[in-house]
Amino acid sequence: MRNLFILSIIFLCWNSSQAQTFVGKQKHINQILDNTRKFSEYVMKSDYEGIANCYTSDAKIFPNNTKILTGRDSIISYWALPEGVGTLFHKITQSEIRINGNEAYDYGYYEGKTKYADGRESSWQGKYVIVWRREKGVWKIYLDIWNKVPLKS
Amino acid sequence: MRNLFILSIIFLCWNSSQAQTFVGKQKHINQILDNTRKFSEYVMKSDYEGIANCYTSDAKIFPNNTKILTGRDSIISYWALPEGVGTLFHKITQSEIRINGNEAYDYGYYEGKTKYADGRESSWQGKYVIVWRREKGVWKIYLDIWNKVPLKS
Repeated sequence: MRNLFILSIIFLCWNSSQAQTFVGKQKHINQILDNTRKFSEYVMKSDYEGIANCYTSDAKIFPNNTKILTGRDSIISYWALPEGVGTLFHKITQSEIRINGNEAYDYGYYEGKTKYADGRESSWQGKYVIVWRREKGVWKIYLDIWNKVPLKS
Repeated sequence: MRNLFILSIIFLCWNSSQAQTFVGKQKHINQILDNTRKFSEYVMKSDYEGIANCYTSDAKIFPNNTKILTGRDSIISYWALPEGVGTLFHKITQSEIRINGNEAYDYGYYEGKTKYADGRESSWQGKYVIVWRREKGVWKIYLDIWNKVPLKS
């Protein structure tokens, strides 16, 4: 823990009028930022193998109104959209990322837009906490939990 | 991280047919288990100062359908129930606790029952992720996020 603080580079920047606190070595912070951007790209491309590869093999996801879902098949089933439905937009904005050895967590907000088969579009937003693990040098999502934020707030 | 594993005591026990994985020194695991039980007691006693003291001064809570709430006053406002309303039962069952230096996380399920002013009672359950921090030797909740699990699942 002492080493963490000695090695830490603390970034405090302002993005869209919102503070972001990143604590940890820059290469780790950058990989988590990059992996998160890729995750959003996979969601927008409905690339479910890509999404699944962002998670550890024993990852747990916590969608609202289900039990905890674990394992690659459950995660792909959750993310898979019906025929004709797509995610037009997906973006995650981190409020804080904190690296601690081979574990890390971040929290913040997400936003997105879904297009349905009938052409209707629906925007949504929420907040999340992710616990990351570094496996063979690659940061992957181990725990992923979120819930809604009303669009007007 | 290596030290963590060398020092770790891994408990694998079965409770209510559900696996629990606790990784870390037993004294830390025990304090987190104990603090979680106390948290439930404070909720059942509507002891809002007690609840607030379970959190770090910069803690964040993530109730559904709000933005992220931070700070003692926001946390007390969230937990405070209207006159005549009480929590008859509150219990947290950890699926995993993992200590990493002065940080830790746990996830699992919660369940409870509310009694309303008109005498009606309502049961509920959900799942959660908590990120803990050890401050002056005491484990406190830094991030607290949860969402629902249907009662029949």
